[in-house]
Amino acid sequence: MKPAIPKGTRDFAPYEMVKRNFIINTITNTYRHYGYRQIETPAMENLSTLEGKYGEEGDKLLFRILNSGLKPEDLKKSDSINAITEKGLRYDLTVPFARYVVMHQNEITFPFKRYQVQPVWRADRPQKGRYREFIQCDADVIGSNSLLNEVEMVMMIKDVFQKLGLGVTIKINNRKVLAGICEAIGVPDKMMNITIAIDKLDKTGWHKVKEELLSKGISPSAILKLEPILQFQSDSISALSFLKNQLSASETGLKGIHEIQSVFDSLSAVNFHFQTIQFDHTLARGLNYYTGAIFEVKVNHPGSNFSGSLLGGGRYDDLTGIFGLPHVSGVGISFGIDRIYDVMDELKLFESINLQASSTQVLFVNFGEEEVKYILPVLQQLRAASINAELYPDAVKLKKQISYADSNKIPFVVIAGTNEITNNQLTIKLMDQGKQETISSGKLIERLKTENIVKQK
Amino acid sequence: MKPAIPKGTRDFAPYEMVKRNFIINTITNTYRHYGYRQIETPAMENLSTLEGKYGEEGDKLLFRILNSGLKPEDLKKSDSINAITEKGLRYDLTVPFARYVVMHQNEITFPFKRYQVQPVWRADRPQKGRYREFIQCDADVIGSNSLLNEVEMVMMIKDVFQKLGLGVTIKINNRKVLAGICEAIGVPDKMMNITIAIDKLDKTGWHKVKEELLSKGISPSAILKLEPILQFQSDSISALSFLKNQLSASETGLKGIHEIQSVFDSLSAVNFHFQTIQFDHTLARGLNYYTGAIFEVKVNHPGSNFSGSLLGGGRYDDLTGIFGLPHVSGVGISFGIDRIYDVMDELKLFESINLQASSTQVLFVNFGEEEVKYILPVLQQLRAASINAELYPDAVKLKKQISYADSNKIPFVVIAGTNEITNNQLTIKLMDQGKQETISSGKLIERLKTENIVKQK
Repeated sequence: MKPAIPKGTRDFAPYEMVKRNFIINTITNTYRHYGYRQIETPAMENLSTLEGKYGEEGDKLLFRILNSGLKPEDLKKSDSINAITEKGLRYDLTVPFARYVVMHQNEITFPFKRYQVQPVWRADRPQKGRYREFIQCDADVIGSNSLLNEVEMVMMIKDVFQKLGLGVTIKINNRKVLAGICEAIGVPDKMMNITIAIDKLDKTGWHKVKEELLSKGISPSAILKLEPILQFQSDSISALSFLKNQLSASETGLKGIHEIQSVFDSLSAVNFHFQTIQFDHTLARGLNYYTGAIFEVKVNHPGSNFSGSLLGGGRYDDLTGIFGLPHVSGVGISFGIDRIYDVMDELKLFESINLQASSTQVLFVNFGEEEVKYILPVLQQLRAASINAELYPDAVKLKKQISYADSNKIPFVVIAGTNEITNNQLTIKLMDQGKQETISSGKLIERLKTENIVKQK
Repeated sequence: MKPAIPKGTRDFAPYEMVKRNFIINTITNTYRHYGYRQIETPAMENLSTLEGKYGEEGDKLLFRILNSGLKPEDLKKSDSINAITEKGLRYDLTVPFARYVVMHQNEITFPFKRYQVQPVWRADRPQKGRYREFIQCDADVIGSNSLLNEVEMVMMIKDVFQKLGLGVTIKINNRKVLAGICEAIGVPDKMMNITIAIDKLDKTGWHKVKEELLSKGISPSAILKLEPILQFQSDSISALSFLKNQLSASETGLKGIHEIQSVFDSLSAVNFHFQTIQFDHTLARGLNYYTGAIFEVKVNHPGSNFSGSLLGGGRYDDLTGIFGLPHVSGVGISFGIDRIYDVMDELKLFESINLQASSTQVLFVNFGEEEVKYILPVLQQLRAASINAELYPDAVKLKKQISYADSNKIPFVVIAGTNEITNNQLTIKLMDQGKQETISSGKLIERLKTENIVKQK
């Protein structure tokens, strides 16, 4: 048999893991710096927890687990899919988090700042950049209405992309501004339709959005009023004052403007670079549970024309209500690891980052039993000094061992033959420079550290 | 609805995650120090990859994923479970690894040293310490026959438990020794039955093992010869020479003894503590693919009488053959995270480890807008210095904020009211000592570092 993996799923090779871990660790370190605490939930949830939370389309995309111990004849007797499946794989981290908060509400001290990094599964049609299994990397605060949470979310986003070395624009809007716009154009009850349509403005342009709005029964006169509002493009400060004007009759709209203004004010207090953040009143985000701030991140880096979004998030007023704990407000963000990886890879950003510390740094050549006995204690010293080092396990030809170092991108090869042993020395080969030098065996760590420091800066 | 999670699965709270991560990071750091490289494989594998690899019992324990898009009427038409399920959740990391090696054989430079830390799923009957979803933490070398791999496995095991602060005994045996014993007692063809029976010696005692052997058709005369061999207990050196004697007529048996001897010799070269390792010729390990060395780890720590095994492993001569790549020898180990966690928790070993660096270290009290503006820049300095710090998001009563710090075990609370702001100071409250002091605001990081250093040593 020829082995294969299910479509839409992936294996990750060591060189990919090192880069993925770099992204994930950068995000989780930042989450921890801001006081977020990690939780994990099971991959399998009861279908009663998952169903009905992602719309009709989402329900179809749930992977269902067959109940254990079923026999073929049980299938004939089953009248529904639910009769043979009670569990499913989680579809995102937000619903399991809401379930977690409700189940553990008596152990949790609110506000609860949690982060979670786990895979999710969706039976989507696989396509470029879209997978059936992928990692989500979420942070949420639940149980606090303070806008400082939004402020800190923006600061975390900035910190992460700064550490990744990737230029981005953080877009921020507020669902209350969108509600205000709907009021201002005279269709306060059509907010959901308008949000979903506006969400596509980026990809399809105004013409298509207009068509969709018409098809959803929005009157031509409302659309006529909407157009100049959506077409208005400017820096954040001007946009805020333009919208303040437009929405002067909408209490909700003004509240939204005020919330954004307040986030900007707090960011000033920490000298936040306002090139990084942009108030964009056309930002809509399709998902329907957001009620306040919404966030999105776009690449803004020389050489990239990637237009997708690297992060999404926002505030929701009542996520846990469906599980029996109403009126708990929360705000959260979710980084798109796969997209960040692809963009960074395309821009060759990983090349300027020292990922060596998480790969093997030194290979010791194996010439046979005697040489190995000389090497083993040195090897242990390196490991005790947290230097990743290995000994080629078999005493094969030198050429093969060097080629192993080469394929695995191991930068230093240490050779100890009869000469070296007699003089208590080691020969060290610097793979990328193609040169080698012989040093006293006690000086190895010192010598490697010099090299590493050179590489790290 | 009252939310719940599927039986045999678990949520992990922040305080549990910190401890679990400490164990997992200790293991993976050690793996990397020894030159192992991480891979990941999908949670879902094709059932054709999984089925038939874990025996009949194992096949029953596979979680199967229902094919997408099935309708109730499709069930009636289905004659087998396989007709409606093509994928399953991985049952261990070894079979997916074998599949990975075969699929990627042209990209891999052998010997391939890989580690992998991912959850696995088994539809086992849930019971204390046995879960339906749990994390495995494996390292394997594939494509090398050298016994140095076994040596390094033992060294890694020692390093890990030393860093965890948990006293253990590493037991080592060799399947060839077991084969030699079967030859010596005259039943060379009964190796599998004898291995499976001996595996229970620990738990059930010799009497029950004898019963099982009789029931499997082992002759009383063979059992009579087996008894003194199994009953022989001694230090490793004496046991090796006793067995060498007993197995003098068995070429395979002597080869096994020689292999163990060679591992012990190499360990001497690095001054390995021989209290930690024990040659135990009654160690059998039920799983049937091992062909050389076998490993197991038992707790050997004052105050614990836990008798289960914390790690298992061994050498297998042909794991990838079933996927079309024969004659590739490998050796691997797998740490039991959940058991290690339970033992360490019971022994209160986590208390002497500084886990604070991965939790929040400082809470800033929130007295309102003005105070927050004073605090935000200080907060950012702490985070830039990799100190995990948070600001209580709402300006609620001080008592509530202090109690938040208390519940979340945040050791330092920083307070800045009108007085502090006027004098450019901060008041720092040391939660565990119940005392507080006022310092210049520029001295905070310095002050915290002193405290941390005191705690770390």
